[in-house]
Amino acid sequence: MGLPNGSELELFDNPAPERDYEIVHTAHEFTSVCPVTGHPDFGTLTFTYVPDAVCVELKSMKLWLQSFRNEGVFYEAAVNHMCDVLSEKLGPRRLEVRGEFSVRGGMSTVVIARHPTK
Amino acid sequence: MGLPNGSELELFDNPAPERDYEIVHTAHEFTSVCPVTGHPDFGTLTFTYVPDAVCVELKSMKLWLQSFRNEGVFYEAAVNHMCDVLSEKLGPRRLEVRGEFSVRGGMSTVVIARHPTK
Amino acid sequence: MGLPNGSELELFDNPAPERDYEIVHTAHEFTSVCPVTGHPDFGTLTFTYVPDAVCVELKSMKLWLQSFRNEGVFYEAAVNHMCDVLSEKLGPRRLEVRGEFSVRGGMSTVVIARHPTK
Amino acid sequence: MGLPNGSELELFDNPAPERDYEIVHTAHEFTSVCPVTGHPDFGTLTFTYVPDAVCVELKSMKLWLQSFRNEGVFYEAAVNHMCDVLSEKLGPRRLEVRGEFSVRGGMSTVVIARHPTK
Amino acid sequence: MGLPNGSELELFDNPAPERDYEIVHTAHEFTSVCPVTGHPDFGTLTFTYVPDAVCVELKSMKLWLQSFRNEGVFYEAAVNHMCDVLSEKLGPRRLEVRGEFSVRGGMSTVVIARHPTK
Amino acid sequence: MGLPNGSELELFDNPAPERDYEIVHTAHEFTSVCPVTGHPDFGTLTFTYVPDAVCVELKSMKLWLQSFRNEGVFYEAAVNHMCDVLSEKLGPRRLEVRGEFSVRGGMSTVVIARHPTK
Amino acid sequence: MGLPNGSELELFDNPAPERDYEIVHTAHEFTSVCPVTGHPDFGTLTFTYVPDAVCVELKSMKLWLQSFRNEGVFYEAAVNHMCDVLSEKLGPRRLEVRGEFSVRGGMSTVVIARHPTK
Amino acid sequence: MGLPNGSELELFDNPAPERDYEIVHTAHEFTSVCPVTGHPDFGTLTFTYVPDAVCVELKSMKLWLQSFRNEGVFYEAAVNHMCDVLSEKLGPRRLEVRGEFSVRGGMSTVVIARHPTK
Amino acid sequence: MGLPNGSELELFDNPAPERDYEIVHTAHEFTSVCPVTGHPDFGTLTFTYVPDAVCVELKSMKLWLQSFRNEGVFYEAAVNHMCDVLSEKLGPRRLEVRGEFSVRGGMSTVVIARHPTK
Amino acid sequence: MGLPNGSELELFDNPAPERDYEIVHTAHEFTSVCPVTGHPDFGTLTFTYVPDAVCVELKSMKLWLQSFRNEGVFYEAAVNHMCDVLSEKLGPRRLEVRGEFSVRGGMSTVVIARHPTK
Repeated sequence: MGLPNGSELELFDNPAPERDYEIVHTAHEFTSVCPVTGHPDFGTLTFTYVPDAVCVELKSMKLWLQSFRNEGVFYEAAVNHMCDVLSEKLGPRRLEVRGEFSVRGGMSTVVIARHPTK
Repeated sequence: MGLPNGSELELFDNPAPERDYEIVHTAHEFTSVCPVTGHPDFGTLTFTYVPDAVCVELKSMKLWLQSFRNEGVFYEAAVNHMCDVLSEKLGPRRLEVRGEFSVRGGMSTVVIARHPTK
Repeated sequence: MGLPNGSELELFDNPAPERDYEIVHTAHEFTSVCPVTGHPDFGTLTFTYVPDAVCVELKSMKLWLQSFRNEGVFYEAAVNHMCDVLSEKLGPRRLEVRGEFSVRGGMSTVVIARHPTK
Repeated sequence: MGLPNGSELELFDNPAPERDYEIVHTAHEFTSVCPVTGHPDFGTLTFTYVPDAVCVELKSMKLWLQSFRNEGVFYEAAVNHMCDVLSEKLGPRRLEVRGEFSVRGGMSTVVIARHPTK
Repeated sequence: MGLPNGSELELFDNPAPERDYEIVHTAHEFTSVCPVTGHPDFGTLTFTYVPDAVCVELKSMKLWLQSFRNEGVFYEAAVNHMCDVLSEKLGPRRLEVRGEFSVRGGMSTVVIARHPTK
Repeated sequence: MGLPNGSELELFDNPAPERDYEIVHTAHEFTSVCPVTGHPDFGTLTFTYVPDAVCVELKSMKLWLQSFRNEGVFYEAAVNHMCDVLSEKLGPRRLEVRGEFSVRGGMSTVVIARHPTK
Repeated sequence: MGLPNGSELELFDNPAPERDYEIVHTAHEFTSVCPVTGHPDFGTLTFTYVPDAVCVELKSMKLWLQSFRNEGVFYEAAVNHMCDVLSEKLGPRRLEVRGEFSVRGGMSTVVIARHPTK
Repeated sequence: MGLPNGSELELFDNPAPERDYEIVHTAHEFTSVCPVTGHPDFGTLTFTYVPDAVCVELKSMKLWLQSFRNEGVFYEAAVNHMCDVLSEKLGPRRLEVRGEFSVRGGMSTVVIARHPTK
Repeated sequence: MGLPNGSELELFDNPAPERDYEIVHTAHEFTSVCPVTGHPDFGTLTFTYVPDAVCVELKSMKLWLQSFRNEGVFYEAAVNHMCDVLSEKLGPRRLEVRGEFSVRGGMSTVVIARHPTK
Repeated sequence: MGLPNGSELELFDNPAPERDYEIVHTAHEFTSVCPVTGHPDFGTLTFTYVPDAVCVELKSMKLWLQSFRNEGVFYEAAVNHMCDVLSEKLGPRRLEVRGEFSVRGGMSTVVIARHPTK
């Protein structure tokens, strides 16, 4: 799949690896393009994870998300792709990616993927 | 039962069948007709499911819901019918249909059906 | 124009014609059909008026608004038509019709007409 | 008209007659009966006035409003009647009575009367 | 106990008895009378149940609740009485009655009863 | 400890002792005095309990809470004291006392005690 | 009248007397006592003024308002008294005192006094 | 200026030119690019106008706004440009363009332009 | 007065000087220090202006506001000082500075200055 | 690590050590400095704990949090450091520290640490 592969993501050492704790990053301004109509899609993405050896640096995460701006992608594929990339890069103890997409034709959509699948 | 049978529903392959994940579609503009009085009813329908082999295409879902517009149907029957149709078409790992209907005579109603019944 | 002409509207005598006072009726469940796409439109209509000799009976107003359910009409035309019909039927000292229509393609619309135009 | 005539209303001397100032009483729990269907109606009533020689005592006002509980009355008539009774009893420099009534058949209603009519 | 015994409640056959599903009716305009002071009480009642053989018809439920209008009853007794009546009439698989009553003397009260007691 | 001992609390027989059900009283207007600075404190207290043989009468509860008005007491001590008094007086099957206190120096505080400690 | 006369109010020089500008202080935790029932009353007081030569120091204002804690006073009298005291002490170009008092018997009250009366 | 010139805007005849009435279109999903940093900007645009001979067709307006997606433009310039284009295309009796832009560095910005300048 | 004099403020040419239009910048994260207690103060500042020849660049404005972080200053002085600095630097057709400061001792404060004083 | 070590924290004896109960302190006005950019960060910190032998005194906690004002620290490090300091000082039965930080570049962050790690 040709979606942004997260090469720009930067990591830093987890400052408290002895403890299971949660980090939640919410990106309020996600936008991509509908692969069928070519019209822009908008949404809010929330990433919740328990770090193991490393954490993701916030600014690099913003840049990765911005790189979807002109990509054509379905909601279900985008959220699962992000879950795959972050699982591989971060090796987190737990991860959830939640995408809330805005109204289209009177309907709104949420997609939620978790790693590992419980 | 003569309610819309979902023949217009279109499916696409689940992009991440190896993972249990949730998809939530919320239709904010559902309307049907009260079978007793003939007056219109209004509500919000929320469909939450874990896909197995296939997902439902959003626009076809909108068309199916619009086809209830001039149908006379009770709340309880409508929600259970939708749960039956989607269970059969999607073969989901889990499904919940939630209908929230607007105030009538100072009372509002919610109906929630799940497949499989747990 | 072939839009519902309000023949079902019933009137009753203004109980306080010696006083300028305001009556506001808000219909939360208006729906009609887009004349271009054939898809349903939804909105909230608010009628504010100062009665002169007569007031409009609430239930007959509901029936009139329900009769737009399967009519194809643009927002701008619907609101102006309602303003024309009520002005003629009620002869109000003042009237405002405000239609707030739900999101289509990421955009929502409000149309506000007044009689007499000030 | 046989609506409650306010005989239970008690007055007290305005503590600051040298000043134009506003008093606003909001009754959140008004209920009466629809004269057509016999079903109960519910609403919130807001009384805003500038006192002249006297003010209305709050508890007696509550009792007066409670005496509408089993009266059959239209919204428009109730609000205008209250405006008449309070204008006569209080002789206020200004008075507004605002009734906001709950949803019936998908429609809600507000009625606003003022004394003197401006 | 002399509280309204629900003789006006009408039932209809459960359209999906093969499934455990929830029905929630919320009555926003409940009113009764305080048995001590004689002043009116106001509240919102929410009935959540899993039907077995029968469901309760909505309009008959409204009429039953309206019949408490001039009854003197304590909050705790009213909610438990309703739970008893509906348990007997409906034979539900599960039932919860929740009453939320408005502020008196700076205090508000909620009472929640379930059948069967778990 | 010299805090108000609840001698004014009145009890009445539980109308449904055969059932475990919840009663929630929320006092929105609690005030006491800071024992260090002498300045008033303000908060909302919520009492949730499952009654056994008796329930607490609402007006007597209000009077008990009002008797803290000029007492100097720390938040933690007040909530635990109330939990002790009500446990002894009511012998409830379960009890929770929750105190939410307003902002002091940019910080707000909540204290929650339960009986029995689970 | 024996209400707190504001002797504790402290003033400081207006830092910008060449300009008409507004200062708004809102006291969220006002409490006094009902002169009839002896029960506590609660409210929010908002003071809006355009200073002339002097401004009021915030902490001294808090102490003045706290001194009403055990005073018996009607809403209308309290707000007008505060307007009188501040007008005399501050000699403001404009002043408004707004008191919003909490629900009693299902009714809430607002009183608004201005100096000079316009 | 090289900003999108509105060539895609389509017009239709005003259905009620005899009356001054308002049309309000709100675009919730506007995005462009910061000309300095190259990072995306997001905002909500509200267009309020009184039509004269013509109205703007909603879908063409959406397409025009989408064409700003990859344009580098300052907030102040974007809003004024839109006001210029619509004034010329529509010849409205009155027009207001309001842009509300999201938080950057802890600061949010609103720009409001009107035609004619009053 | 030794408060930050705005030397870091950068200006750019007004892109539409032929039109009176409004720019509103809201800084949600203002903090300074109380000159009496040394404790930090927090607030939201809103700047509304009609530009003449020049506009203020947003990032330089943020830096100016950040330079108040460790300054001891009263609310009234801070808002008037900002109004003076911006009036001199921008020469705006109209300017309003509004500071909303957080709760201290149960009281919150707003200060609003305008240029020119109307 | 050189972050504020909590030497100013004062403790008092737990008034109810026989009971497991929760204390929640929320600091609405936390600010520190980004160690990379030097710009201020803002957030809300919530401390939830079950005390054992001692509780933390509220004013000393405020002073400790204020001492982060000019410290450069990452969100993840700050929350874990606070969890370490409070665990050591209070020896609580349970502790959770939750930091909610404001939007930067369109993204907000929450970090939640618990002791003991469950």
